[in-house]
Amino acid sequence: MIVVLRRNSPLSKREELILRLKALGITTHISQGEQNTVIGLVGDTSKVDPDDLMALPYVEKVQRVSEPFKLANRQFHTADTIVDISGVKIGGGSFTVIAGPCSVETEEQIVYTAKRVKAAGGKLLRGGAFKPRTSPYAFRGLKNEGIKLLEIAKKETGLPIVTELMSVEHLEFFDNVDVIQIGARNMQNFEMLTEIGKQKKPVLLKRGLANTIEEWLMSAEYIMASGNENVILCERGVRTFETALRNTYDLACIPFMQSLTHLPIIADPSHASGKSSLIPALSKATVAVGASGIMIEVHPTPEKALCDGAQSIDCDTFDRVMTDIKKYAEIEGKTV
Amino acid sequence: MIVVLRRNSPLSKREELILRLKALGITTHISQGEQNTVIGLVGDTSKVDPDDLMALPYVEKVQRVSEPFKLANRQFHTADTIVDISGVKIGGGSFTVIAGPCSVETEEQIVYTAKRVKAAGGKLLRGGAFKPRTSPYAFRGLKNEGIKLLEIAKKETGLPIVTELMSVEHLEFFDNVDVIQIGARNMQNFEMLTEIGKQKKPVLLKRGLANTIEEWLMSAEYIMASGNENVILCERGVRTFETALRNTYDLACIPFMQSLTHLPIIADPSHASGKSSLIPALSKATVAVGASGIMIEVHPTPEKALCDGAQSIDCDTFDRVMTDIKKYAEIEGKTV
Amino acid sequence: MIVVLRRNSPLSKREELILRLKALGITTHISQGEQNTVIGLVGDTSKVDPDDLMALPYVEKVQRVSEPFKLANRQFHTADTIVDISGVKIGGGSFTVIAGPCSVETEEQIVYTAKRVKAAGGKLLRGGAFKPRTSPYAFRGLKNEGIKLLEIAKKETGLPIVTELMSVEHLEFFDNVDVIQIGARNMQNFEMLTEIGKQKKPVLLKRGLANTIEEWLMSAEYIMASGNENVILCERGVRTFETALRNTYDLACIPFMQSLTHLPIIADPSHASGKSSLIPALSKATVAVGASGIMIEVHPTPEKALCDGAQSIDCDTFDRVMTDIKKYAEIEGKTV
Amino acid sequence: MIVVLRRNSPLSKREELILRLKALGITTHISQGEQNTVIGLVGDTSKVDPDDLMALPYVEKVQRVSEPFKLANRQFHTADTIVDISGVKIGGGSFTVIAGPCSVETEEQIVYTAKRVKAAGGKLLRGGAFKPRTSPYAFRGLKNEGIKLLEIAKKETGLPIVTELMSVEHLEFFDNVDVIQIGARNMQNFEMLTEIGKQKKPVLLKRGLANTIEEWLMSAEYIMASGNENVILCERGVRTFETALRNTYDLACIPFMQSLTHLPIIADPSHASGKSSLIPALSKATVAVGASGIMIEVHPTPEKALCDGAQSIDCDTFDRVMTDIKKYAEIEGKTV
Repeated sequence: MIVVLRRNSPLSKREELILRLKALGITTHISQGEQNTVIGLVGDTSKVDPDDLMALPYVEKVQRVSEPFKLANRQFHTADTIVDISGVKIGGGSFTVIAGPCSVETEEQIVYTAKRVKAAGGKLLRGGAFKPRTSPYAFRGLKNEGIKLLEIAKKETGLPIVTELMSVEHLEFFDNVDVIQIGARNMQNFEMLTEIGKQKKPVLLKRGLANTIEEWLMSAEYIMASGNENVILCERGVRTFETALRNTYDLACIPFMQSLTHLPIIADPSHASGKSSLIPALSKATVAVGASGIMIEVHPTPEKALCDGAQSIDCDTFDRVMTDIKKYAEIEGKTV
Repeated sequence: MIVVLRRNSPLSKREELILRLKALGITTHISQGEQNTVIGLVGDTSKVDPDDLMALPYVEKVQRVSEPFKLANRQFHTADTIVDISGVKIGGGSFTVIAGPCSVETEEQIVYTAKRVKAAGGKLLRGGAFKPRTSPYAFRGLKNEGIKLLEIAKKETGLPIVTELMSVEHLEFFDNVDVIQIGARNMQNFEMLTEIGKQKKPVLLKRGLANTIEEWLMSAEYIMASGNENVILCERGVRTFETALRNTYDLACIPFMQSLTHLPIIADPSHASGKSSLIPALSKATVAVGASGIMIEVHPTPEKALCDGAQSIDCDTFDRVMTDIKKYAEIEGKTV
Repeated sequence: MIVVLRRNSPLSKREELILRLKALGITTHISQGEQNTVIGLVGDTSKVDPDDLMALPYVEKVQRVSEPFKLANRQFHTADTIVDISGVKIGGGSFTVIAGPCSVETEEQIVYTAKRVKAAGGKLLRGGAFKPRTSPYAFRGLKNEGIKLLEIAKKETGLPIVTELMSVEHLEFFDNVDVIQIGARNMQNFEMLTEIGKQKKPVLLKRGLANTIEEWLMSAEYIMASGNENVILCERGVRTFETALRNTYDLACIPFMQSLTHLPIIADPSHASGKSSLIPALSKATVAVGASGIMIEVHPTPEKALCDGAQSIDCDTFDRVMTDIKKYAEIEGKTV
Repeated sequence: MIVVLRRNSPLSKREELILRLKALGITTHISQGEQNTVIGLVGDTSKVDPDDLMALPYVEKVQRVSEPFKLANRQFHTADTIVDISGVKIGGGSFTVIAGPCSVETEEQIVYTAKRVKAAGGKLLRGGAFKPRTSPYAFRGLKNEGIKLLEIAKKETGLPIVTELMSVEHLEFFDNVDVIQIGARNMQNFEMLTEIGKQKKPVLLKRGLANTIEEWLMSAEYIMASGNENVILCERGVRTFETALRNTYDLACIPFMQSLTHLPIIADPSHASGKSSLIPALSKATVAVGASGIMIEVHPTPEKALCDGAQSIDCDTFDRVMTDIKKYAEIEGKTV
């Protein structure tokens, strides 16, 4: 960490700061420039909050030099983390496909979709039971009944299931859920992250609407610091000035983040684009960019879906998307 | 609501859509343009989800004509809502000042600050007990001990207290809290909004990091639809491409939203700017733009604060800010 | 176009509006809803400015139904436009690679790079002669001397050349330039667009820093309306809240825009990411998503580049990137 | 400037870098941390491009410590710059009102508006003659005929005139123009900035759609480095994810920038909000936040304006706005 002092800040204040840092076990180096004095901090700076230093009236700038996350950091854990879900692997040399409807609606719908997902080569079944909706008047999911239907589909197909948790109080319904999804809007629900880190099921952590890569990794760090290192990151588009599509799909973040973290990163083109016609092209790009997997919304009859039909593809389209994904994964040397 | 059909969409599909809408109690008007057919929907369209219609393969665009919120809507409730907190009013002809430290740290700190806030004309005391922090390694507040200290300050000064709720499970500690704050990161924690709407204390709902005005009002609608109409909205800066300041303070949203909603809107320049030196200028602008109040971070010794010292002003500066606020409020014909 | 009137707007005003539109050759349909009156406009609405209608005190909203661009619109020109540059094609079944240094520096540098680009399968040579730089103190290119060096490289390799025009006054130096690039910062320099449309060389129009897809297509429309239909669009990343990378690469816009326009769309991962280590992954994704080509910064010794070295790959890396691009293009059925 | 080296970068590379910097007259300080080596650069670093250093394979990060602008920097020029326009002052203790229509339309329109602006206390007349429009099919201004009409209005009222320059080639028409406006879309038209810096008329430089404060100041620096120090900065709203209003009005940037630069900063609530009903509230906030002036769109009959009627106020409203501005300026101790 680097602290830049304001011009003409008194020597006594500089000494005070050095002593304060020493008390935290930090040693300091001073570079006296023509215009500014820069203090370099050496030691474990994870306990030093840049904002605290910024509050000092003679400090002009504070800049981090090393990343604030540790457990998620590739520097201290060079090998890829591979999350194992009853034998299905996410990370390493796999490209794992998670698919299913936005919302679980009926037994027929979810069992039929699960069978088609499995037949096409999908490895995990997704389906929303507790649904976050912007409007209190919209359909908010079948809740625990929806989870029971997912369990039936799992029994019928053997596909492990992924579904979103919207409140820690609902955990009691998640006994047979294989991967707990934390949605974009709860990415910085720190109480939930802390609680979810205390249990052992893998966690699929979606990126928040407008959260930075660093904030996202700090949220993963929350879960890991609480005891659960099975975290899968999922890019799902970010909010920008462009509103022609639902979000802006940030594919470049994937290879970039792979240098920062050992956690597997997958991506969700359905929420990113909001447009089913784009899923074939975006799925191929998701493999090409080096992601560890993909999550796609598939519905037997998208035009009758109770939620997000506009971004769901039908089962026949999913078959074709899987054919493309397999071709691309083969070039990448990955197992679908 | 307006539905634009794709060119050359078959007449049979159009008829199907009209019947489907009829079943929901919606009547339709058709405008046949040169390039497009536009269907106007008449009736209570709040049950029609634009996304559902977008899922139909022959629909090109769906556009709302009326706002999706009702209880918060100025059109159906023209008079200003005035929230009463043990006699302190927010809304109508008042400009209400809420002040206090980012975090409650010690009894001396909070009691001293409360006295200074009261002496200067502040009407409510704020202080964080449960603190949302980006890093799991940062100070996360004194939690229920912090609330006890706030209660002492309330007893000593008579100022009602405002503090943030981070999990519905903590509500048991909030018996003596007067206003429950929902932080920016929980603005779309829909389960929490639903629960908080079931109790009767006023709720101060901060705008999310990158949430639109409409989403923010829909979150207020969640609380109101659950039974609690005492909602105070609080602008606190939004996230944009500009990173020189912590956030971009969206003051223009205040007079704009006053035409959309009857709920009182206040603003928080401390979180918006992240810089204590800007608070005097931004406080004056907050009165000038017509807000119903302001929330300011004040700390006896900002340079020693455990959290957000860089954006906190000291008590003497707060005195000067209050003098300015009073002058401006007088011109606006408002009571501080 | 749809005009929503304010509640309780007088009938006389509505009649006035209908007459005003009639004078412009527009006919109108009225849908009388419970809360709002909606007027549908039928006819050539390209002369009706939505902002003009919004200025009427009884108008609440104006929404376009059809796109404001015509010459660039896929609806009126269904076949792909293929731009021919001395036999090199952009658009249709080709995937065209444009490569070269950010800035032209010396004859050796540009000729060597051109030979390596050609040997690896690149079809056009890029190189900056007039350079837009944020700081007036930075290297601003060799200007017309740079263009002369590009001409030498063209002579040596036969590769057509692409370089940026920063002022219409420099056009005199562009006689032997094959494609004129309009940079992101000039995307809405409307005088330049109008002028450039009056000459016949193909134009490579980069997307502006924070310009919407619609604005970008309207800028292409400027050039086309001026007489030049040989426009190539180039996505180069957009500015968002995320600053970890130089820009956010908006790959999803490519398949989306292909439904809106017949113009070819290529992409520039070098400016989008600002990071050479990401170019291999992003290049593959650019083919996968369906772009008509790519523009990559290549420099013999990136660490000694006078400009943008951090985002330039060296020639050996370019060879490997080309090998990958060819594999992916083959699956896509495209000719590199 | 601070250079952070990658872990395990060889000592020989570090020495190479130090020599390279020495050749530029820069001395270096090394801080050896536990994880990273940090090199502090001392001397005139304005010639060192951070991007060049980032291109070195063993460099991880480069961070500026001091601002890249010099002529515009408050540190080297502590007194406020006061721009004098035929006796009208912008900067220092004045709050200067510039008003007039978006576009000049007819002699009656501009002369009448000028008289009303003057009578109400406006000090400069604005009016668009060359108009930047997103669509090539929209009204693009009366061009040099519009400037002639502005000259008539100036003769009738004595108000100096401000109008936008869209191409350096039009300068010949600007002989009697008093302030040359550079619009948001040309803020980074570096060729134009350089040329405009070679003449002596004051320049009103609007902030770009999505340009940072630093980029904006660097564009001012371009003009100043070219020889013209009479630059007035004008905030006009920035583009963000929020589309309910035309732009997001960034009022907080004004007091923040006043600590960075000595140049006067004014603001334009008309373009920022796009909504005439918000102008009264936003004008008061603009005074309150400490701006040196304001630019407001006024039109005799906004509902008949050829451009931007929705954001223009009429002359009677302008009278009321001026009354408010004067009250607020009086509290601020400023002369309107």
